[in-house]
Amino acid sequence: MSGHIVALSGGVGGAKLAHGLSLALPPEELSIIVNTGDDFTHLGLHIAPDLDSVMYALAGLSDPIRGWGRRDETWTFMGALEGLGGETWFQLGDGDLAMHVERSWRLAQGAGLSEVTAQLCRALGIAARVLPMSDDPVRTRVLTAQGWLDFQEYFVHQRCIPAVREFRFAGAETARAQPEALAALERPDLRAIIICPSNPFVSVEPILAVPGLRAAIRDSRAPVVAVTPIIGGAAVKGPAAKMMTELGFDVSAAAVARRYAGLIDGFIIDQADVFPEPLPGITFFSAAALMNSDEDRLRLARAVLQAADSLGAKPA
Amino acid sequence: MSGHIVALSGGVGGAKLAHGLSLALPPEELSIIVNTGDDFTHLGLHIAPDLDSVMYALAGLSDPIRGWGRRDETWTFMGALEGLGGETWFQLGDGDLAMHVERSWRLAQGAGLSEVTAQLCRALGIAARVLPMSDDPVRTRVLTAQGWLDFQEYFVHQRCIPAVREFRFAGAETARAQPEALAALERPDLRAIIICPSNPFVSVEPILAVPGLRAAIRDSRAPVVAVTPIIGGAAVKGPAAKMMTELGFDVSAAAVARRYAGLIDGFIIDQADVFPEPLPGITFFSAAALMNSDEDRLRLARAVLQAADSLGAKPA
Repeated sequence: MSGHIVALSGGVGGAKLAHGLSLALPPEELSIIVNTGDDFTHLGLHIAPDLDSVMYALAGLSDPIRGWGRRDETWTFMGALEGLGGETWFQLGDGDLAMHVERSWRLAQGAGLSEVTAQLCRALGIAARVLPMSDDPVRTRVLTAQGWLDFQEYFVHQRCIPAVREFRFAGAETARAQPEALAALERPDLRAIIICPSNPFVSVEPILAVPGLRAAIRDSRAPVVAVTPIIGGAAVKGPAAKMMTELGFDVSAAAVARRYAGLIDGFIIDQADVFPEPLPGITFFSAAALMNSDEDRLRLARAVLQAADSLGAKPA
Repeated sequence: MSGHIVALSGGVGGAKLAHGLSLALPPEELSIIVNTGDDFTHLGLHIAPDLDSVMYALAGLSDPIRGWGRRDETWTFMGALEGLGGETWFQLGDGDLAMHVERSWRLAQGAGLSEVTAQLCRALGIAARVLPMSDDPVRTRVLTAQGWLDFQEYFVHQRCIPAVREFRFAGAETARAQPEALAALERPDLRAIIICPSNPFVSVEPILAVPGLRAAIRDSRAPVVAVTPIIGGAAVKGPAAKMMTELGFDVSAAAVARRYAGLIDGFIIDQADVFPEPLPGITFFSAAALMNSDEDRLRLARAVLQAADSLGAKPA
């Protein structure tokens, strides 16, 4: 089958499936809408962790051990910064810095985030379209017992230790959806929309909070399939499980599927998990959802596409 | 003898003697006024090559082989930047980047260049005062057959290949001398003013172009002693000799001394050179002016101080 695929992705887990989809599809058939709610300005640099994770994954530059940042990284900058009394709570690898410096400089010259992202993708040989959800700033904020925290303050500086109560996406109300992202969701040849195995609260929902994107997904005739970020009652990576507990959800694939109810048509659980109780309007599929290798990513991408194709287009 | 020493310094050669002076003197007796005419904004970062050279020298962080930048440097950033299609004509080491990022960030927060420099010095354990000549931007420009070039375009990008005709220090007319620099030159206990062995045209004269500084030096009762950057008819490092030829000067220590006539009382030539024809108002001294080790730096600093002390204060 052919037709256009739109994937929604956050950072590491989402980036892995986005990479798998890029291995499974001709590049002109894939658009990836990436969360920018994690973006922040640090030491004057515009840092876009999820865009970087997706670009590094698609360019084959991800570090295979750490799970974030660039492979073959060095850390001379951080050591020198510490010697200057600078802020060292956010780790910036020497190679990774090139992305932040180059992006920040181009933004300062007046380019939009999606334009800069497209330039970076071209330079890195990435042929699929990687699209920030918006060129306008949307910033995830986290309500904890300490009050509202900026996302990276919570996520990196405080290592997700404070219990979360609520999330807000500052700026989302007035942010404009990235035009190509919205256009991709409205393509007549749209084959499927894939919600990658990313954190629902802080990776996928910021995307859905940008005006027009949730409605475009909900109203699309193309099947919408999400992949679980929860396997065996735990998050593959990151704080999703801890957040679910703190917010009063079961830590289960089914709870993630329920969170997406009304939006998705299919949901992929891991093959090691049992099928949950049926949910109206959602078809569950089982696949090997753990991605430890490029082969795993490709296999999961193919399974997701197959699931979507089996659902087919919805009636107009 | 005690009393305050003010040194004027550009980059590498000047920084070596500034380091020697810092080894020879109690830190409270030394202020170093540094050229900022080489400063420029690159990739959105404020780069201050001479301030960095002086700070690295005084902190013992200079690279001993390359002659510029930090020791134990790595180059991962530059490789990654090249991979992103970024500008690579100006080499930025990974450790060196910490200086540029930290400085740029603090400047963006509203701090002045001298305040940021003082913070960086404290962090690096530098006790002597390192003072930019001005907190206002002064930018050296170079007239060549190609027209006016920004200094780093001429110096690094075009590797000093175009013949120079003239220099201008854009912004100098309205720049305010750094207040502590001016105050140091006007101290009643001023023991001497040392012009370090830096390029007269593009390291020392930008400092002299800042309103108030040349007059304060000229009018000081303290002896003013310059150290030759030319040894045996060649520049120890950098384009000084090439510039002198292109501008129609002899390439000699004497020509540098003549360039400073009316400003200096003493001039140090290298021990390998013969004493030049007498110049009215300038006493020539001979010393080992080549600095290949910390011992050389200290020895030259002591010789310079001794020369200045032998001249003594001028009558009021």
